[in-house]
Amino acid sequence: MSFNDEMFESHISIASSTMKRSVIRELLKLVEKPEIISFAGGLPAPTTFPVDELKDIVTTSLSKYGNIMLQYGSTEGDSRLKRLLLKRFMDKTSVKNLNENNILVVSASQQALDMVGKLFIDRDDLIMVENPSYLGGLSAFRAYGAKMIGVDLEDDGINIEQFEEKLNKIYNSGKKIKFFYTIPDFQNPAGVCTSLEKRRKIIEIADKYDFMIIEDAPYKELRYEKEDLPYLYELDPSGRVIGLFTFSKIYCPGLRLGWIIAHPKVIDKLVIIKQAVDLCTAPFNQIITAEYMERGLLEGRIQKNIELYRKRKNLMLNAFEKYFPNGKGIKWTKPEGGLFLWVSLPENINTEELFFDVIKNNVAYVIGSAFYGDEPKYNSFRMNFSYPTEDKIEEGVKRLGEVLKKKLS
Amino acid sequence: MSFNDEMFESHISIASSTMKRSVIRELLKLVEKPEIISFAGGLPAPTTFPVDELKDIVTTSLSKYGNIMLQYGSTEGDSRLKRLLLKRFMDKTSVKNLNENNILVVSASQQALDMVGKLFIDRDDLIMVENPSYLGGLSAFRAYGAKMIGVDLEDDGINIEQFEEKLNKIYNSGKKIKFFYTIPDFQNPAGVCTSLEKRRKIIEIADKYDFMIIEDAPYKELRYEKEDLPYLYELDPSGRVIGLFTFSKIYCPGLRLGWIIAHPKVIDKLVIIKQAVDLCTAPFNQIITAEYMERGLLEGRIQKNIELYRKRKNLMLNAFEKYFPNGKGIKWTKPEGGLFLWVSLPENINTEELFFDVIKNNVAYVIGSAFYGDEPKYNSFRMNFSYPTEDKIEEGVKRLGEVLKKKLS
Repeated sequence: MSFNDEMFESHISIASSTMKRSVIRELLKLVEKPEIISFAGGLPAPTTFPVDELKDIVTTSLSKYGNIMLQYGSTEGDSRLKRLLLKRFMDKTSVKNLNENNILVVSASQQALDMVGKLFIDRDDLIMVENPSYLGGLSAFRAYGAKMIGVDLEDDGINIEQFEEKLNKIYNSGKKIKFFYTIPDFQNPAGVCTSLEKRRKIIEIADKYDFMIIEDAPYKELRYEKEDLPYLYELDPSGRVIGLFTFSKIYCPGLRLGWIIAHPKVIDKLVIIKQAVDLCTAPFNQIITAEYMERGLLEGRIQKNIELYRKRKNLMLNAFEKYFPNGKGIKWTKPEGGLFLWVSLPENINTEELFFDVIKNNVAYVIGSAFYGDEPKYNSFRMNFSYPTEDKIEEGVKRLGEVLKKKLS
Repeated sequence: MSFNDEMFESHISIASSTMKRSVIRELLKLVEKPEIISFAGGLPAPTTFPVDELKDIVTTSLSKYGNIMLQYGSTEGDSRLKRLLLKRFMDKTSVKNLNENNILVVSASQQALDMVGKLFIDRDDLIMVENPSYLGGLSAFRAYGAKMIGVDLEDDGINIEQFEEKLNKIYNSGKKIKFFYTIPDFQNPAGVCTSLEKRRKIIEIADKYDFMIIEDAPYKELRYEKEDLPYLYELDPSGRVIGLFTFSKIYCPGLRLGWIIAHPKVIDKLVIIKQAVDLCTAPFNQIITAEYMERGLLEGRIQKNIELYRKRKNLMLNAFEKYFPNGKGIKWTKPEGGLFLWVSLPENINTEELFFDVIKNNVAYVIGSAFYGDEPKYNSFRMNFSYPTEDKIEEGVKRLGEVLKKKLS
């Protein structure tokens, strides 16, 4: 008997029947050919990985803690890792009163996003997101049936007037939003940073309407210019901000490690959720990472990442000036940190259609329309500058410029 | 401003407002005192962990594959690990036609259970489970709002007549079940094994009513007596069985690694789900495990586990004979494999109440009522024999016997 497609389709959940493969991940497969220079991914540069340090760390840790590293661990996370993460956060911020009830170790921040979805979202619940926003966040929330309302992102964060207008409309109609999802620092995909003024305003508005804030901060420590701004978490005295953090961009993504900082009541619920989701994050990975931090290696690593990525970002911006057609209405963000920047073409250009010309010229970006919670725009694309090497950035932007020149001539 | 409990509670999802901490995990915390001999956990014996082998494997792998181990990986899983797992499965079973589209690597089988929940369950959907069943499965499905119908488990698998009766009633009322969740081999918590006849019957019934089967097989390779039985997956020609597998009990749980084998259409959907859940399972953990398998170390490891656990299981059964009161209506299962056995007391004894006496005598089990999908029974408890050492088993069962003798005198 052969597989009964119809039966299977009729048995799956509403969410999974509408879920689609991530455009980015599918495109990445398409552009795996060696001749293509891809700016489509969001990968850290492998030269930043602590390969050699980890050899000794793993061997030493296995000798000391082998039986703990290979056993089930607590759902909350490894105590030493939690302690080190809390201390580091308090050292670097104005927050001083955290304890182990404020933190939960997770299997990187995509898991945190999924867990936030499970914690808050019932089918058709409203949430608000930046437009554009991180694709993985949107997919995680969509999988729980969330209806997303997007707020336009500007060069210094969301359009606050529009945010309030949309909230007003929602609350006036007797509805509410569960949370606002934001990446305040070097946003994915736009690369912009929310200003201090807008940060304060967002907290104020959340207080007024009474909703939670999910602050996703994967890139915050990768700042290449200007002064660091406070976390939303620091600006909120009420515990309505849930902070999501990851080792993926400052250390390495291959160990799948992140953490959540939030009010103990929130953490308590998330622990219960994590029990049902994967019991615990790999103790092996947590213990070697705690050892890495305890040896004081993380700060130097981050500094090196910053230097490398700053160079690549500047190189990409310079290459844009050099190779993109002048005076044709092309704009791009000038990130002060992170891994991405966002290019906007004149509104009549559709970057989905343009993608095929781009690929033919052996270069790749990510189509911008994939990043919208609602009402997608079609004239933008995302560029990653952390992964491609310096010569690839120069050559790739040149190839992209050729396509743009032809299209906009 | 202080945390607004009411606001938070009013914003969380229906599922998370009803989710409770796992009874087992909370009890485990309670019994962490060193004077208590605990049979409550489900941990493998740490002496079975490949601590020393992994030192060399990690060092060698980091030299060869460091940049891949520490980078993001594909959602589907590491190619070498998938190839090795498929080959091993085909070598050991009658299944011969699998390829890489039939497999997905996951972060251990609790994640597989969560993903199965996301794939199939909308709020109030019906599923069927064994009564009793694995707590982690029940929590994962409950988190998606499943309504669980339990079928009584007997010494050779579920009561087939009751299964058909309940299905008849459901389908006659115009409803359907999404899937039947079963652990055919050395079931958690009962320790029983579904007979070949019942396996065939379950497939036949699933064909008749047209539902999926989730076959959870964490213990199947830990058989201490008698002949191995085929997987449900082997007996089903139609692709309605989704097989869940884990390294946790045959290698170690601390790397959080498992895999799913199913029809390509099912795997395809699960890949999309996994993108939203955690992007990928840690490449680091997958690559060292592939290396472990490629060095041919897994089979010897499993054999050693079998010898150790067989000894502990027999020791526990003997201790029951020796220390439990005779002729008082106490029954227990006699597992041919796995990590657990199930003790049933006369129906008037409530093991939740008895738990406090048991703890006072410095010994612990898991209360049986936690394991029911519906209509819990209160006169049973689960015992683990893989983790406690031989002398603890003897002494612990003696302490338990003292409580039972007093209670049943």
